[in-house]
Amino acid sequence: MYNRVYNFAAGPSQLSLDVLEEISKDLFNYQGTGMSVMEMSHRSKTYLKIFEETKATIKEVMNIPDNYEIIFMQGGATEQFSAIPLNLAPNAKADYIVTGSFAKKAAKEAAKFVDVNIACDVGPDYKRIPKQDELNLRKDADYVYICANNTIYGTEYQDYPDTGDIPLVADMSSDICSKKIDVSKFGLIYAGCQKNMGIAGLSFVIVRKDLIGKHRENMPVLMEYDTQVNGDSMYNTPNTFAIYVLGLVAKWIKKLGGLEAMEKRNKEKAKILYDILDNSDFYIGHADKDSRSMMNVTFNLPTEELEAKFVAEAKKEGMESLKGHRSVGGIRASIYNAMELEGIEKLAAFMKKFEEENR
Amino acid sequence: MYNRVYNFAAGPSQLSLDVLEEISKDLFNYQGTGMSVMEMSHRSKTYLKIFEETKATIKEVMNIPDNYEIIFMQGGATEQFSAIPLNLAPNAKADYIVTGSFAKKAAKEAAKFVDVNIACDVGPDYKRIPKQDELNLRKDADYVYICANNTIYGTEYQDYPDTGDIPLVADMSSDICSKKIDVSKFGLIYAGCQKNMGIAGLSFVIVRKDLIGKHRENMPVLMEYDTQVNGDSMYNTPNTFAIYVLGLVAKWIKKLGGLEAMEKRNKEKAKILYDILDNSDFYIGHADKDSRSMMNVTFNLPTEELEAKFVAEAKKEGMESLKGHRSVGGIRASIYNAMELEGIEKLAAFMKKFEEENR
Repeated sequence: MYNRVYNFAAGPSQLSLDVLEEISKDLFNYQGTGMSVMEMSHRSKTYLKIFEETKATIKEVMNIPDNYEIIFMQGGATEQFSAIPLNLAPNAKADYIVTGSFAKKAAKEAAKFVDVNIACDVGPDYKRIPKQDELNLRKDADYVYICANNTIYGTEYQDYPDTGDIPLVADMSSDICSKKIDVSKFGLIYAGCQKNMGIAGLSFVIVRKDLIGKHRENMPVLMEYDTQVNGDSMYNTPNTFAIYVLGLVAKWIKKLGGLEAMEKRNKEKAKILYDILDNSDFYIGHADKDSRSMMNVTFNLPTEELEAKFVAEAKKEGMESLKGHRSVGGIRASIYNAMELEGIEKLAAFMKKFEEENR
Repeated sequence: MYNRVYNFAAGPSQLSLDVLEEISKDLFNYQGTGMSVMEMSHRSKTYLKIFEETKATIKEVMNIPDNYEIIFMQGGATEQFSAIPLNLAPNAKADYIVTGSFAKKAAKEAAKFVDVNIACDVGPDYKRIPKQDELNLRKDADYVYICANNTIYGTEYQDYPDTGDIPLVADMSSDICSKKIDVSKFGLIYAGCQKNMGIAGLSFVIVRKDLIGKHRENMPVLMEYDTQVNGDSMYNTPNTFAIYVLGLVAKWIKKLGGLEAMEKRNKEKAKILYDILDNSDFYIGHADKDSRSMMNVTFNLPTEELEAKFVAEAKKEGMESLKGHRSVGGIRASIYNAMELEGIEKLAAFMKKFEEENR
């Protein structure tokens, strides 16, 4: 009806049509208020209802325990790279596990403010997630930092590291809400929302209450988690529209059966593509099998020319943004929650045909 | 057709119907790309075209000279409260002119990082903008800071202070693009976009090139103006959708005749309401006549009960959010660019009728 493509972009990325239809329905006049959500005062009764519903729905969907605060911020993951060491390190010591570019960037930023120990770095090719016994963790670190899913390399933690009493902090920008997780195992979880939670310009932060309020003096006020919590994410005007979209996404996940159903669906989707890699010597997967991401499937073709041809021909057939990240090349299919099984089947059929024609 | 109200909210606030119609037209499929702007990779060709057009159009509309950089950030004015002293004060000295709550908050935040001199404070009632000879400016300050329009109090600079060679920094969140200004008189101008430039979650910053690159070491990377400039506001994922909306707003301003036409229209609109205040002893304007804001018209009625009745009855007639800021009470009509003359005439007629019936 709308002549839409299958959008395999890594983020910002495809939204479910259901969510776009909700946005469209209320665009000029949200439920009889006579205005768009974009135009509403963040202090208005109608908007506060949207805000509270969003919070409640995502809390339910992710099963977030009561001893955690939910904060909506701006600035994406990069702002959290600074905010985390400024807020969570009263002893100014943090351990970072580096599994890709974003974890590395986070560690570099943290080193401006605290003593950073690289507990492990699986570079330079970042094909895998390290095992527990490879981690050089300090007993007196304030937190241990991981990037749960590495968008660029297509790797993802299947089991999270055991950090004992030391809070585990996770950037889940690219796999949040893709599967069930036990929030209580984490000190802090955060995500930029432009992959699995809606649109760009909003960051979603879950932080254990006892970790809040130990931030350093004289840091930017907007980055203080306690200020954000005390103002219920409205110390200043929040990204009102993106919070509304997150609410729609959370309701859509709930409607589809919650994270359990989403995980099942995502496993099925990823398996279709990984099966092709496993049964081909034309397509070479980047990630080690035990470290594969359910969200970003990365692989190479025999030559760069064939990769360019693959991307161009897929585009002609209505499959967009399959080119790998500019830092590593190759092909990357980002298959977040909003990617329908139909899109995967279309890509799989295309991959088989392309291999036959070009091997 | 859409049954919309007149929305007098102070921000987020009314959008022009033209802008909403553009958003609606391309919501599922932006110009044949098969996806919404919200879903586009910020690195895609289509999105980069939107981004460049937005920048070029706002540069043209505001007549921004070539020796200024345009930056899109997140976090609103509050983030700039921190970013400005961290970026623009190599000597760690700044003068602040306090004309309301937001200037005061900005000064308080800056004092975390630099030596702040309050060059003038016209509180506690903030009815006016100070005269040049009231300003206690230091000769060795790194910059002088003003809030160009005080949303809460309804005051606005008619002439900007003369700061000689010292860069003038202005928060124009609530009057940017409402009138012609000479950008070359400023070192830095910024605005949260949710009033006159679209929607919440985006900050618009114009900074003179020679002031960039003197930021302090070990500050949050996302707040560094040089990092933002070097990455062309894409050091990380920007608020892609809000930038697109800003582009639509800028095109709409251009279509209406640019800032000259906008200023004429805004003057006319404000005059209608201020004439009522000037010809009434029922409505008492808050601001001194020579300091009145063209964007936020603030006034009181004889009693708080009448003020509550005014807001409630106006709401029944399709005029929303006329209640003054919770910190000062009274009535506030925010009449940004997107408020049509028709809305003003409706409010004026209502005010006359309400006075007759309740005096």
